[in-house]
Amino acid sequence: MSIGLAIIGAGYWGPNLVRTAQATPAFRLDWLCDLQVERAKGVLGPYTTVRPTDSYDAVLGDPAVAAVAIATPAATHFDLVRHALEAGKHVLVEKPLTSTTSEAEKLIELAARRRRILMVDHTFVYTGAVQKIKELVDSGQLGRLYYYDSVRINLGLFQHDISVIWDLAVHDLAIMDYVLDRVPRAAAAIGVAHIPGRPVNMGYLTCFFDDDLIAHLHVNWLAPVKVRRTMISGDRQMIVYDDVEPSEKIKVYDKGITVSNGLANGHGNGMEKAHELLVGNRAGDMMAPQISLAEALRVEAQHFVECVGSGRRPLTDGWAGLRVIQVLEAAERSLAVNGTPMELA
Amino acid sequence: MSIGLAIIGAGYWGPNLVRTAQATPAFRLDWLCDLQVERAKGVLGPYTTVRPTDSYDAVLGDPAVAAVAIATPAATHFDLVRHALEAGKHVLVEKPLTSTTSEAEKLIELAARRRRILMVDHTFVYTGAVQKIKELVDSGQLGRLYYYDSVRINLGLFQHDISVIWDLAVHDLAIMDYVLDRVPRAAAAIGVAHIPGRPVNMGYLTCFFDDDLIAHLHVNWLAPVKVRRTMISGDRQMIVYDDVEPSEKIKVYDKGITVSNGLANGHGNGMEKAHELLVGNRAGDMMAPQISLAEALRVEAQHFVECVGSGRRPLTDGWAGLRVIQVLEAAERSLAVNGTPMELA
Amino acid sequence: MSIGLAIIGAGYWGPNLVRTAQATPAFRLDWLCDLQVERAKGVLGPYTTVRPTDSYDAVLGDPAVAAVAIATPAATHFDLVRHALEAGKHVLVEKPLTSTTSEAEKLIELAARRRRILMVDHTFVYTGAVQKIKELVDSGQLGRLYYYDSVRINLGLFQHDISVIWDLAVHDLAIMDYVLDRVPRAAAAIGVAHIPGRPVNMGYLTCFFDDDLIAHLHVNWLAPVKVRRTMISGDRQMIVYDDVEPSEKIKVYDKGITVSNGLANGHGNGMEKAHELLVGNRAGDMMAPQISLAEALRVEAQHFVECVGSGRRPLTDGWAGLRVIQVLEAAERSLAVNGTPMELA
Amino acid sequence: MSIGLAIIGAGYWGPNLVRTAQATPAFRLDWLCDLQVERAKGVLGPYTTVRPTDSYDAVLGDPAVAAVAIATPAATHFDLVRHALEAGKHVLVEKPLTSTTSEAEKLIELAARRRRILMVDHTFVYTGAVQKIKELVDSGQLGRLYYYDSVRINLGLFQHDISVIWDLAVHDLAIMDYVLDRVPRAAAAIGVAHIPGRPVNMGYLTCFFDDDLIAHLHVNWLAPVKVRRTMISGDRQMIVYDDVEPSEKIKVYDKGITVSNGLANGHGNGMEKAHELLVGNRAGDMMAPQISLAEALRVEAQHFVECVGSGRRPLTDGWAGLRVIQVLEAAERSLAVNGTPMELA
Repeated sequence: MSIGLAIIGAGYWGPNLVRTAQATPAFRLDWLCDLQVERAKGVLGPYTTVRPTDSYDAVLGDPAVAAVAIATPAATHFDLVRHALEAGKHVLVEKPLTSTTSEAEKLIELAARRRRILMVDHTFVYTGAVQKIKELVDSGQLGRLYYYDSVRINLGLFQHDISVIWDLAVHDLAIMDYVLDRVPRAAAAIGVAHIPGRPVNMGYLTCFFDDDLIAHLHVNWLAPVKVRRTMISGDRQMIVYDDVEPSEKIKVYDKGITVSNGLANGHGNGMEKAHELLVGNRAGDMMAPQISLAEALRVEAQHFVECVGSGRRPLTDGWAGLRVIQVLEAAERSLAVNGTPMELA
Repeated sequence: MSIGLAIIGAGYWGPNLVRTAQATPAFRLDWLCDLQVERAKGVLGPYTTVRPTDSYDAVLGDPAVAAVAIATPAATHFDLVRHALEAGKHVLVEKPLTSTTSEAEKLIELAARRRRILMVDHTFVYTGAVQKIKELVDSGQLGRLYYYDSVRINLGLFQHDISVIWDLAVHDLAIMDYVLDRVPRAAAAIGVAHIPGRPVNMGYLTCFFDDDLIAHLHVNWLAPVKVRRTMISGDRQMIVYDDVEPSEKIKVYDKGITVSNGLANGHGNGMEKAHELLVGNRAGDMMAPQISLAEALRVEAQHFVECVGSGRRPLTDGWAGLRVIQVLEAAERSLAVNGTPMELA
Repeated sequence: MSIGLAIIGAGYWGPNLVRTAQATPAFRLDWLCDLQVERAKGVLGPYTTVRPTDSYDAVLGDPAVAAVAIATPAATHFDLVRHALEAGKHVLVEKPLTSTTSEAEKLIELAARRRRILMVDHTFVYTGAVQKIKELVDSGQLGRLYYYDSVRINLGLFQHDISVIWDLAVHDLAIMDYVLDRVPRAAAAIGVAHIPGRPVNMGYLTCFFDDDLIAHLHVNWLAPVKVRRTMISGDRQMIVYDDVEPSEKIKVYDKGITVSNGLANGHGNGMEKAHELLVGNRAGDMMAPQISLAEALRVEAQHFVECVGSGRRPLTDGWAGLRVIQVLEAAERSLAVNGTPMELA
Repeated sequence: MSIGLAIIGAGYWGPNLVRTAQATPAFRLDWLCDLQVERAKGVLGPYTTVRPTDSYDAVLGDPAVAAVAIATPAATHFDLVRHALEAGKHVLVEKPLTSTTSEAEKLIELAARRRRILMVDHTFVYTGAVQKIKELVDSGQLGRLYYYDSVRINLGLFQHDISVIWDLAVHDLAIMDYVLDRVPRAAAAIGVAHIPGRPVNMGYLTCFFDDDLIAHLHVNWLAPVKVRRTMISGDRQMIVYDDVEPSEKIKVYDKGITVSNGLANGHGNGMEKAHELLVGNRAGDMMAPQISLAEALRVEAQHFVECVGSGRRPLTDGWAGLRVIQVLEAAERSLAVNGTPMELA
């Protein structure tokens, strides 16, 4: 038996949800809802049997609808998700889950009380690439983790309501939360708003973990080239994840450093001490593992279906959404003071 | 008439100076000096007429020597340069000029008093690529400058005496000083020393300028891949300088943003206000200008020759060396407090 | 008023036509026809108002249908197109137009007689990249054309009914026909069928033009990497068209050779003659022009709409389809004799 | 005890031999000989103890000279090598060994009779990359070999005495001879000479082996970009060797095709037969093995030293040089008839 679904929001991301829902047999897509019903009609096109509407109440009041997928601006998430959960619907909501940690906590509590699935659309978590990275990190073969460094930049759409950090870094924080399975103790952020009256359009976000693990994210709407590259480095192996590559998105380098005692072979005019700790390089093979090419959104839709059916907790549940927002909030406080690090709430 | 030259230091960089000096007809290479004379002999090889020595005094006492080129560890620069200037020699010294700003100031003063050339080996400034970038920035075609972002990482030699910031960021600071011709008001740095007892091996350095111009440098000895990429972005055009590319090192993107008034076409469910400042993208052609392929060190050697001959001030004089050290010192203070920005001295 | 359209074939390419037709307001998609009606239903999905059918007669007998788009195996094209034209329908047919030149000639004649549009789906011609290349070549800025070299390889689907030359080289021949606007006088081909009983799976096809212009195509279903790269070289400028690049698909190199008289500076031990024709290199800027990112199939669909409405001859009409088949036939004859060139019919 | 060495030819390649010989302790470089003695002096520079000369007789008459390394134009190789062997010297000669097979055979015979080493400078054979490829091919892990495809193009020096095939394809033929260890039965070549009175400046060379193995080489002096890429494909694994890459020059793809019986799932309108041989794709991991970064010319020089010392047969002996020339001669005959294949002598 299929799950009656309504999609809320026919803007930038909504059409992807519509396409995915129609290709997922376990769903029966009943409604596409947008305050501008013409926009919903435009997305559905002239050959559809799916109903457009501008009434969220009608959607929530439809007993055939068991779940809603929400792709509206972040500021509206809290109210829309709350109403949906209160109407007994399961919810998949676009990232970020909410605009504040307190809102996120309320939704988590509400979903638990109503025994409904609350899943955040951290799409990248469902890519073959991130699944493979998770597997590699969990295997321990990287050794002790040293750093996580990510660059996500392009000439992108300037959002008018949220900063580039809330728009782009959220992807990296979601991936990092999933892959590292660790919570940073502090965050720092530096950013600039080059257009007066607009949010920050480029930023550098640092997360401080225990054990000298550091994460650094560069996000930018105003870059001439599209870069989406993450390095995850351990003391034994290192991963480069280049999402712009059409194939070989993940490369695992069997490289690192070696530490030994011995005679230094430094450069310069020979003044270095004769005995000291020597740090050398170790180079080895590189391996690009085969990864699943399944479309992330389809994998995610199927995962939502399974969670709704079984009550199982989603990989990207409300708590994952909350942890991401905790970092974003600390980053925002740091941004206001030019990068002085802030402890997480 | 050729300039009698002595090279000091037969370590990592010295052999490049030897090779370059021998290929520069205006020089007559007289000495290669290293505390380990065997190392000097090894660099010169069995077929040479150049004299190896371990006596800096002998070199400085040789009236045939008009200039010295110093490629020893940074900590030794101050004393070696000072003695050379006092002995009336012109000096080309490897970066960084000294370990502190006060030392640099003393050398600048001394060189001026003795009327000798003091030139810092900021090699990248003499590449065809950086010369072309300078030309593009000076032309004003980039528009108002927004940011300078640089990544210089690889699996590199762990220095034992200086951090990765003093080792690698110094290159970017030297390029930036030359290209932007502006002095930052503050700097911030975050870094980690993953090997106990060793200097910081990865770091992120931010420079704050007036007018919302920001610079950010990522330097790292422990990266699986070699990246040397700089983006310089203005509101009209943007440059990508990729030094790893064998050709087309510089790409100029005729891209940017457009700001206008009008009806928003945002994403989401249509709640955005009807009238606001609109920010759009503007895409255009990309151009990779032809650049000189002349080896930077040869160009630099020739420039040193000309400065010695004419008394002309080098492009990378002591003041340039000093400005770079000012940023490095502020970065070091910031590093100690996890990235809180520090005003420049 | 919209054009009633039926799509024939719900295999590999059909779904793209369905998607495109639904997004083209000037079309009213009435039918999707496939001998296996279940396949047509699967392509349309559960939310459609488009009718699936397995009856080509029903489609051709429907007076509301003004045009058909045919995406069936090549061997079926002749009969399907002929019936459609005889029924008074306009036709867009997947490449290659037919399996033989004589069939192609008959269809061209029939379309002319019935005054119906016959357009071949040479999709690449409608890309922004090929349109830009055409513009550059037509401008004359390349100078005298020297060669056209193309590589189109990947680990691809082994067709069971046609060789890799009929499957892949047809794309390059269609692009070349459009861009060069010249007909080769002879063609040669070398290929290997590595799987017994299967068609040739890798091949090298050469076209000989007048004036020392040469074209060479490498096509391969069994390559470890996906390459789609074309070089078009003149004596003044050269183009590289890399279709795998997400951006900057076209690069124009202001490079070439210079010919002059003078003293040779050859290598070797000095035995060359003192006076001879000197050939040097000329390097200059590279430019990557902005190109339209519009989806080729949508541009092509719109062009078909305009041709149907105005009677205008399509860019890729039956004659273009015929010229491509003439080269393919000569190549096939050459293949049988290990690459001895064959004159075109 | 070191080997007295003389280098003949101070043109394009000679300086590399000089540099390498000086860095090889087992050599004692005595002479650099060039008909233009000023050129020899220029290469040696002002700081050398090596003697320049324009007298080949003086070199051959010097009993301290045990070996000569010849880097002169191809047309002079036969005479220079012959005289050296007759004077009892060991010989390393630049590729191609000679201009004709008969000359090569005479030199091989002469070297054997005089018991002297005759080694051809097939430099690429001594790279870490080609050594690794040889190891991979010999291991059998590629399975049955299907093809060898190479592209070696750039905007290069137009030779005045030899065609691009003799200049560039010789590299690929030397690599192929070493890696495949098989002799083709026929060769075909197509090429164009775009400059009147000059040799062919672009060409396509095909080698036909038994067992459906085919090799194809594209060489070109007039390409806008530098490409040096070789694919070696077997039915189980495939290698891509990209010599332009600074690292990861070799990639081994665990990819291929699968052949099975079953129900076809072809595209089109369902007319394919139900039972046939099915060919599918198999994708797997990619691995870039670590390769030695030792400079090829140094490895080769050391190998020459060992062969001279031990009488061992070089990897690239006269026979290897001869086999390469056999293919070049067949290619030349084919070129004259527009690519009709020619049996090897």
